[in-house]
Amino acid sequence: MKRIDLNCDLGENFGRYQLFDDSLVLPYISSANVACGYHAGDALTMQRSVQQVKSQGVALGAHPGYPDLVGFGRRNLTATPAEVYSYVVYQVGALAAFANAVDYPLVHVKPHGAMYNMAAVDDRLADAIAQAVYDVDSKLKLVGLAGSALIAAGQRRGLTVRQEVFADRRYLDNGQLVPRSHPDALIKELDQAVAQVLNMVLNGRVTTLSGATIDIVADTLCVHGDSAEARDFIVKIRQKLAENNVLIGADVR
Amino acid sequence: MKRIDLNCDLGENFGRYQLFDDSLVLPYISSANVACGYHAGDALTMQRSVQQVKSQGVALGAHPGYPDLVGFGRRNLTATPAEVYSYVVYQVGALAAFANAVDYPLVHVKPHGAMYNMAAVDDRLADAIAQAVYDVDSKLKLVGLAGSALIAAGQRRGLTVRQEVFADRRYLDNGQLVPRSHPDALIKELDQAVAQVLNMVLNGRVTTLSGATIDIVADTLCVHGDSAEARDFIVKIRQKLAENNVLIGADVR
Amino acid sequence: MKRIDLNCDLGENFGRYQLFDDSLVLPYISSANVACGYHAGDALTMQRSVQQVKSQGVALGAHPGYPDLVGFGRRNLTATPAEVYSYVVYQVGALAAFANAVDYPLVHVKPHGAMYNMAAVDDRLADAIAQAVYDVDSKLKLVGLAGSALIAAGQRRGLTVRQEVFADRRYLDNGQLVPRSHPDALIKELDQAVAQVLNMVLNGRVTTLSGATIDIVADTLCVHGDSAEARDFIVKIRQKLAENNVLIGADVR
Amino acid sequence: MKRIDLNCDLGENFGRYQLFDDSLVLPYISSANVACGYHAGDALTMQRSVQQVKSQGVALGAHPGYPDLVGFGRRNLTATPAEVYSYVVYQVGALAAFANAVDYPLVHVKPHGAMYNMAAVDDRLADAIAQAVYDVDSKLKLVGLAGSALIAAGQRRGLTVRQEVFADRRYLDNGQLVPRSHPDALIKELDQAVAQVLNMVLNGRVTTLSGATIDIVADTLCVHGDSAEARDFIVKIRQKLAENNVLIGADVR
Repeated sequence: MKRIDLNCDLGENFGRYQLFDDSLVLPYISSANVACGYHAGDALTMQRSVQQVKSQGVALGAHPGYPDLVGFGRRNLTATPAEVYSYVVYQVGALAAFANAVDYPLVHVKPHGAMYNMAAVDDRLADAIAQAVYDVDSKLKLVGLAGSALIAAGQRRGLTVRQEVFADRRYLDNGQLVPRSHPDALIKELDQAVAQVLNMVLNGRVTTLSGATIDIVADTLCVHGDSAEARDFIVKIRQKLAENNVLIGADVR
Repeated sequence: MKRIDLNCDLGENFGRYQLFDDSLVLPYISSANVACGYHAGDALTMQRSVQQVKSQGVALGAHPGYPDLVGFGRRNLTATPAEVYSYVVYQVGALAAFANAVDYPLVHVKPHGAMYNMAAVDDRLADAIAQAVYDVDSKLKLVGLAGSALIAAGQRRGLTVRQEVFADRRYLDNGQLVPRSHPDALIKELDQAVAQVLNMVLNGRVTTLSGATIDIVADTLCVHGDSAEARDFIVKIRQKLAENNVLIGADVR
Repeated sequence: MKRIDLNCDLGENFGRYQLFDDSLVLPYISSANVACGYHAGDALTMQRSVQQVKSQGVALGAHPGYPDLVGFGRRNLTATPAEVYSYVVYQVGALAAFANAVDYPLVHVKPHGAMYNMAAVDDRLADAIAQAVYDVDSKLKLVGLAGSALIAAGQRRGLTVRQEVFADRRYLDNGQLVPRSHPDALIKELDQAVAQVLNMVLNGRVTTLSGATIDIVADTLCVHGDSAEARDFIVKIRQKLAENNVLIGADVR
Repeated sequence: MKRIDLNCDLGENFGRYQLFDDSLVLPYISSANVACGYHAGDALTMQRSVQQVKSQGVALGAHPGYPDLVGFGRRNLTATPAEVYSYVVYQVGALAAFANAVDYPLVHVKPHGAMYNMAAVDDRLADAIAQAVYDVDSKLKLVGLAGSALIAAGQRRGLTVRQEVFADRRYLDNGQLVPRSHPDALIKELDQAVAQVLNMVLNGRVTTLSGATIDIVADTLCVHGDSAEARDFIVKIRQKLAENNVLIGADVR
């Protein structure tokens, strides 16, 4: 029987600022990536998020990003690999402490935004992140774009990796995502998004922008919780996966 | 034979900014309190500081403070106990990760500046800090002002505490420090400072501003590394302690 | 004919974080206090807010606060008067530049949160703020709690002051607000709030918590835009003020 | 008679952190670029710097950068032109307020670090910066790399520009600086640096890395104050310029 993990970024409030109510999406996902105070989140938010994630039995992950709160960690920053190494150790360590405090395991690490995108194509950055995760706890799983430099770096370093796929993004022939600046970057029709997911999960394949078919490993699917539409999509995809005998759950081995 | 620990705050650089060269003081101290990115320090600085501290075999401690970089954590801030709890978990967790990364133990936690001072007199704040330290790792030692609310909170929580004394600060009859705003807050004569330390370490007593003698527990002495005079004082006090058969070293049991 | 200004804090978004939609409240107020990047707001938000305020013909004010984004500037901070002076010059100058850029006048300055509250009772802090406002532009109006130390400092410094009153807060006999920690700090009944405003505006008087009647100057009424209830209140109070022949508008002389 | 301006970045302290003592270099320069709180500097530091600059009669400029304190504004950041516009208005406005407060004119704006470098080659970024400077005060001079996109943008916008040259950097045939990553990026011999400056100032020419000679406009020379060697160089270059009848001074028309 096939299985796929549904992961969602959350814990992204900051002080008085609330992005969305994490409790609305937590029942529908199997892994939560909690922001760690650099691109979003603050210490008190992290504590509350870890408690919420634990209360739903969802697998807990750290979601480190660049130190760019005003840009939400979405802007490329030419930080050195040494700087990025330290950023990841710092943020994962901080979140791990909140997990320890409530005796709940930290399972995975997924870089955020620009750090995720840059690490998908830059081997030195990817190696720095993989080493940082390994140095904090070699049993942590590293989540990255399926087939990317970050996945390769994790494998080189001896980490368990989780390859992430997207329902609503189109792929290039080399397995990279079509950049958001491209007019056809996004899949807007729900049925097409569902079909792409099923093809990836059941067949290990995806149809690219050019019409080619490429292999893809689909360990975990990125979902969103910041709108009613996004949450409706999760309900829909869960139903379709169930109809196709695909289990939903994090692989925490 | 008596023993006292000499502890010093360091790792307080930030980005391109350097306060002082930690390597100048490390050979003379037995415990180092490393800033954790809130009042001073940044991730890369923390990584380097942990490596430096390890290379000298000095006991490593976390030095969490208020999120007030421009004020260096020295300004009182009416954060709630819940906020302060989260600040301590976050910062201690981050430093612990750097310690784990180089397989060096984190031994103690000493709050910084305004957090230290407020926790010395505010039971709720002190309890929040003690709980945070306990929740990150119940074997961590909690360093606080000798006889203060923070020491009592650590003991209530079941932590091993380390009572800190000062060479160059005068004491009130209740064991608190004379506020810096008082003209006689500081002991400026080197010989008087040395005599105060010896009295505290050898006899467990200190003479207060009023001329009274009170009991004091001296587990660890606060020293400074940010000036040549401060480092000269450490050399001097080490010599005087040795003449009086007092060992210098951290109690890491 | 009487007149009162209705002022509201806005421009308090930060990066991707949105507190509320300022456009919902702008049509109903006569003065807007725009956050300046310390406790809330960022440069791009400030630019947009100034444009929005101009587009509605509302009087533009700067709303400087303490550098405490995670605490939203609501936590007391023991900054020195010299520090606070510099904080106010910096923030007011930054907002004035956005106003100049669209050729719209900056009319007033109202400190935010903890800075507002501390300046209401601390003469040295109040003088620092008044001097800062004066030094940026001596024609700026200074808004502070009616009868407070900040109003007195503004008058000493030769600034035009605007005394602010609250609809939903109870007053002490000395004219200070009942602290929020007090169970009767807030007026929860709409009719009572309306009655308090009318008494202040029409008669220059307010009934205190003890039942006494004291004089109060009501130049400007603080209203809120961050909830539907808050905006409903503004509609209600506008109607009641109109029924009593009270004009609504900023006094920009 | 020829004239050249000597400009230096300063006011780059932050809170307790001091980079260098600005007073050591102020007597030898004619223009000061004061950091504005994003990449360096804080409000109190800005206030003090403006007073120091005024006390030496040096032309005052704003030195805005990216919001990256830990990276000192030296890391490329993919901020949008709209974001950069707002960053420049904010920072220049803040510094202008400190200048107004002591009744001293703000003369010029020179972007810092990565913002300077990116604006030298990116027309949209350059236009955003030029527009921001113009919108704050159309009489401000815009300082940029000689012959760069920023100079062209300033001229398009109708600003007075000041073309900046470097003594210790080698040039490419297109007038850009040889990147620091190149082994021959820097001129290390003092005599060669002096010769390059004299050739640029007296002849309007510079010899490039390839050995070619290109035209260059040298309105202002970038000097540094953060080391004794850097200050010695200023003394040396002033002497050589004097020997060649070149006046030193800011053109504040």
